[in-house]
This record gives sequence, C-alpha cells and structure tokens, in this order.
Amino acid sequence: MRIGIVGGGQLGRMLAQAARPLGHQVTVLEPAEEVPAAGFADVIPAAYDDPAALLALARACDVVTCEFESVPASSLAAIEAAGVPVFPRPSAFATASDRLLEKSMFRALGLGTAPFADVVDDEGLERALGEIELPAVLKTRRNGYDGKGQAVVRSPDEARAAFAAVGRVPCLLEGFVHFRRELSIVAVRGRDGAVATYDVVENVHREGILHTTTAPATGLRPEVAAAAAHAAHAVLTHLEYVGVMALELFEEDGGVRVNEMAPRVHNSGHCTIESAVTSQFENHVRAIVGAPLGSTALRAPATMVNLVGGVPALDAMLALDDVHVHLYDKRPKPGRKVGHVTSLGRDLPALVALVEACRLR
Amino acid sequence: MRIGIVGGGQLGRMLAQAARPLGHQVTVLEPAEEVPAAGFADVIPAAYDDPAALLALARACDVVTCEFESVPASSLAAIEAAGVPVFPRPSAFATASDRLLEKSMFRALGLGTAPFADVVDDEGLERALGEIELPAVLKTRRNGYDGKGQAVVRSPDEARAAFAAVGRVPCLLEGFVHFRRELSIVAVRGRDGAVATYDVVENVHREGILHTTTAPATGLRPEVAAAAAHAAHAVLTHLEYVGVMALELFEEDGGVRVNEMAPRVHNSGHCTIESAVTSQFENHVRAIVGAPLGSTALRAPATMVNLVGGVPALDAMLALDDVHVHLYDKRPKPGRKVGHVTSLGRDLPALVALVEACRLR
Repeated sequence: MRIGIVGGGQLGRMLAQAARPLGHQVTVLEPAEEVPAAGFADVIPAAYDDPAALLALARACDVVTCEFESVPASSLAAIEAAGVPVFPRPSAFATASDRLLEKSMFRALGLGTAPFADVVDDEGLERALGEIELPAVLKTRRNGYDGKGQAVVRSPDEARAAFAAVGRVPCLLEGFVHFRRELSIVAVRGRDGAVATYDVVENVHREGILHTTTAPATGLRPEVAAAAAHAAHAVLTHLEYVGVMALELFEEDGGVRVNEMAPRVHNSGHCTIESAVTSQFENHVRAIVGAPLGSTALRAPATMVNLVGGVPALDAMLALDDVHVHLYDKRPKPGRKVGHVTSLGRDLPALVALVEACRLR
Repeated sequence: MRIGIVGGGQLGRMLAQAARPLGHQVTVLEPAEEVPAAGFADVIPAAYDDPAALLALARACDVVTCEFESVPASSLAAIEAAGVPVFPRPSAFATASDRLLEKSMFRALGLGTAPFADVVDDEGLERALGEIELPAVLKTRRNGYDGKGQAVVRSPDEARAAFAAVGRVPCLLEGFVHFRRELSIVAVRGRDGAVATYDVVENVHREGILHTTTAPATGLRPEVAAAAAHAAHAVLTHLEYVGVMALELFEEDGGVRVNEMAPRVHNSGHCTIESAVTSQFENHVRAIVGAPLGSTALRAPATMVNLVGGVPALDAMLALDDVHVHLYDKRPKPGRKVGHVTSLGRDLPALVALVEACRLR
C-alpha cells in the first residue's frame, strides 16, 4: 500500500523503516528543512495546511496517518474529502490535542486522573484556585508537549502570573500527584477492533524531556499492570481508535492515574524495536493498513536512552554489549532529540554515562 | 560516514537499512532498472564498469563495499585509485570469483574440500576424469551462483558434452560429497583483525536456490561447530578480510568440508536480523567503517524462508506467530528471490505451506 504521514520527523522515519520491508511505500508531508524521514520516504515539502500539498499527499496514498497530534483538523478533513482514510480517526487527535477534552474523557471512562479544573478567564482561575490545592501545574489546553506550555505554580500570585504569561489562553489548573514513578503503556488497535498492549514501561524525564525508558517497568505489581492495560483498552475502544497509542501514567501507592494520551507511536515505545516481538512502528503500520496485528509480547528486557542535544562518539557506543543505536540524521542542538540508543546488555551504566557526558540541554 | 556499495539489490538494500540508523549515508551503483536499495540509498544508475560512474561513486563515499563477488577488478582498482578504500579487499573477490583459486586456498589452509581437478582443455578433462570418481559435477571456474554454471555428469560422455556446452571455458571437475546436510557459517572480521562468528546454520536448497535456513543448525555436534568456526577464522585471517563472509559447508559423518565462500553478506545470514544480537548487515557496516564489531551471539532460534518467484498474501503471513516479513520491492518472476520471511514462533509449518503455495520456479 501507499502510506502517507503528516510529519517527517523521527517518528515518520521509523514508521517508514518498518513499513518498507512489508512492501509499503511511504510519502511524508513536512515543511521543515531537515526531514529525518527523507531517504526512507518520498517527501512533499510543504506546510501541514497547504491545500495543494494535502491534495498531492492524498493522491499519492491509500491511507494517511500522523506523527504528531496537533495536525490541523482542516488538513485531515481535506485528505478525507479526497477519499483517503485517515487513521487514527481525526476525532482522536481532536481529543488528544485538548487537555480538557482528554482528561474529561479519562474521567468519564472511570479512569483516575490528577484533580483538574478548567481555566478560561481570570474569574475561572480564581474558581480553580479554590478547588485545586497548591502547588499545582497550570497547563495550556492546547499545544503542549515535552513540558512546553506548563508552569508549576506555588501560590495564587504565581498562578495569576503564569496565566498572564501564556496570554490567558484556555488552560487547566492541575493538582500535583505525589507519584512514585512515571509509567506508560503503548497499545495498538486494529481496524477490526482487536486491541493488544505492550508491557508497561517506566519512564524517567529530565527537564520535561524523556531521558530513559525501562521495559518492562521493574517490580511492577500485577494490579498496576492490569489497571494500565484496562485504561488502554477503555480509551482505544471508546475512540474506535486505529493504530498505536501511548498512555502516560502516574504510579501511586494505590494504583495509577492517567496523565495524558499520545495518539501515535511514542518515544517510550522505541525500545519495542528490540524488546518486543513486533515493534510499535510495525504494529502501527499493520493497524492502519488493516493487516493483522503482530504480537506485543516481550522478547527481552531493554532500556532506551534518548540522545538529547548531542551524540556520543559512535564507536564508544558500539563497543558496548548489546547496544542498538538509532540516529535520526538531525543536527545536534540543545534540547533536541537527535537519536536514541537501546541497551539489552550489561553495559547500561556505561551507556548512560556516555550519553550524559554529551547531553546538551 | 558515506558508504558506497557496488550493486543495489536486496543485499545493498539491507546493508543500507542497517547503516542509516548508525548515521551513515549510502550510495549504490546499479545499472538495473529495478533497484531494491533505492529509497534507502542514493543511486548512481550506471554499469559496474562505467569509469565516470565509478569516479562519481568514489567522490561520493568514504569507503566502498560490494554486494556481489564478480565486480570487475578494474572497477575496484579505479575506486582505490581515487583514494577510497574498498572492503573487503579486492583480492578476496578475486579469490572468491574463481573456483580454482578458492578451493586451492581452502586446501592450502588445511580445510577439507570436495575432491577437485582443474579442466582447461579436452586433454585436461580426460585427465580429470581419471582422477575424479563419477558421478561428479562440472563447474565453470567463474560466474557461478545459485546453481548456475554447474552440471552433474554421470559418465565421461556426459562430462565431455557438458564441457562443450559451457564453451570449453576453464572448469573444475568436482567429486560428489555424500553429505548429510548443507551448513554455513557467517563470520565477520574488523579492520583491527578481530573475528567473530555466528552460529552455524542449516540450509535447504531447492533447484539450486536457498529455500530455508535454520539457525542454529539442529543437533549440531560441538566438533562440527568448532571445525566450521576454525575454517572461518582461517579464511578471514588469511585474506586479511574486512567485513562479513559466509562459508558454505557440507556436513559428513566425519566432519565438514568447505564448499565455497561468499565474500559478502549472505542469504543464509538474513535470519540474523532477528536471531542474533547484531545482524550480519550491521556487522558488515561496522567492519568496513572501522567500528567495533557487535556481538554475534544468538538471541533466539529462527528459520528463514526465501520467497522465490512470488509473495504469499501479506496478511496471511502477518497473521502467523512471530513472523517477520522482508520484501525487496522486486517484481515477482520465476526463480527470483523477491523477499524472505523469518519465523521465530510456532507457525513455521504454516509459513512454509504459504510460501510453497505461491513459489514460482
């Protein structure tokens, strides 16, 4: 089949790497000068909302997916109007790209979330401050990822300043969750409604950017694993979702709370390339083209380390035991994910030390 | 680094697939209209001996390798004259592409081979018929692969007819080996002289084309495994080889005989993508760029099945347990390898049945 992807970054790149051996061709729509998916996919170099480019993408493809959630709804509508299906369904993006819609859905599905209150104006902020205990986090409803659009507020004055700083756009005030650790679960749903979940993984963030993922999460209690899988099933089924999704979770002593969903392949699923029978990328491809899903079973425990801002000397990484390097052809820049490395062997501490030494924030 | 490959078929494709995540760029030289490596590598569409194209390849690359052994020696010399190293060294190709040189080297290294005699003319054929017991195989010294350039001869008259049929080009008359099964060993040698060997695998051919490879070979006696590894070490070290090589072996009750060497990544090593810690493709890349070799340890037993002439319905294959599909973007044609599938799960018999059903010879 001919697969289109809105976005040509590293997720598009790894989707194309998984799609091509299955005989699929891939075209990405990407306005940036640097296109990590280039060389694996054809590139339409245009804005995500360029009408002619969207029509060209639709004409070049049998099915279209997205590598990020904030694709303009009008763009997806244009592709569908041209008769080409979009998976996951645009409604999933709409929900995922609005923190209020998203958290309200979790709540309605009976899934635990952090306490939250809607903030649309100054009056709403004061009402929210009456409901939510401080310290809390003020988050814009839209356009947040990797810690962007978020501010920790310790007092009402800090909250007011933060709301002013984001230009009084619609926000949520979200209570702190005193979590033990951050987990996530990657799941996939096929066109036929079949759902499969990967093992729950443990994530460590640095300055709001994912630093490491350990698969599976160490010492996970079975009831927590079951709650995570239940949440994934509930969300995917409710949204009639097609493709891979990740749910970010907070683990507490009493169980888990759902933090947010990512309606796409997810950084915390990169380790599935080596750790699982079928990678998240191949399963996303299988799902959107209507093929049977592959097994999500664990093949071997693994830890993924993101390369942020810089890449250690390649030979130093390749000298380590059972280490798998995935570079994205991106120019190093502070705070930028330029690759990831997955360790299945005994040299994880050495790998982390190498990566730390050249991390640029 | 910028890696050049003479040849843009499926081996070049899978080398590029392994090289790109390590940050390398790949350019292939390929005259054919259909280029499986296209879309993973830049393509220079020209003959393997086109002087301008060879110069362009050299200029575009820091190191050059080959996906087949019969690259014209003058082409490799032209690349080296432009100051770009070629790995493996051209002398390895010279040895591998001439059955007499190859078998004489095995013999000189003390490795068992089938009995053979040189045939340069009619007189030489009669002499060879006096030395080698019939039935035997008459093989051209050059340009043989996948069973081409070979004829089984049961009588002196059949041998004479076969020699006439190949135009009296230089040949070998090779005695039959009553082998129990066909094995092979894939090995890699780094620029620093380090050698690593993969597990010995078992190969089943159909009409001279590899049908299945089982990794590791079942019930292999330790002394046979040791003899195979010894042969690989001896050949790679003797040739000061850099990169991946495969040795095809015959297993007898008393041990192994070396049949031939393939100075490149090899079809019987395709299963290493899933079965080994580091695939043969990544290790070839690591070797030629001078990086440390990756572990060749077994990750999981696997069986590879070649898709020859046709591809079963993709969904039927993907519905099987722990099956990994690798298509090459080649048009199906009788006798043509258009992909391979590796099974690590319980559904191998079903996979083989699917493949058999659409095999075109």
